[in-house]
Amino acid sequence: MTFQVQIKVMPLKDLLDPQGKAVLGGLHNLGMTGVQDVRVGKHITLQIEAANEAAAKEIAETASKQLLANAVMEYFEIEVLKS
Amino acid sequence: MTFQVQIKVMPLKDLLDPQGKAVLGGLHNLGMTGVQDVRVGKHITLQIEAANEAAAKEIAETASKQLLANAVMEYFEIEVLKS
Repeated sequence: MTFQVQIKVMPLKDLLDPQGKAVLGGLHNLGMTGVQDVRVGKHITLQIEAANEAAAKEIAETASKQLLANAVMEYFEIEVLKS
Repeated sequence: MTFQVQIKVMPLKDLLDPQGKAVLGGLHNLGMTGVQDVRVGKHITLQIEAANEAAAKEIAETASKQLLANAVMEYFEIEVLKS
């Protein structure tokens, strides 16, 4: 079965996010002063062929740890959707 | 009220995604051959001060169109969470 897995990789909450700060400045310059904070991360969609949902999630977790996220600076969240 | 708004910005489905292809190659090299496709986009979290959920969503939509997403190459999805 094929599963669609969504992975969100974001900068850790305690760390500065210079990209987010730049976007915040840009939004304020465009007049959107209601925006108070911005954080920018990655969104990764995987198509995974696996026996079941748990197996697909495990592959996604291994992929996140080994390649997609840098644990020193980022955390990740995984969501498995139906095929 | 403050709303947390999640914005997902992804490359359009019909377009090539070189970054995703590179990640796919990397995952295959690491032995994760069950992964069949990868697409990489951005995930942006905004804290928005607005009168209500609809107003927060409108600010997020304007921000996406004007700054966060390039409509020629990307589409975006907005999700408003409770404050």
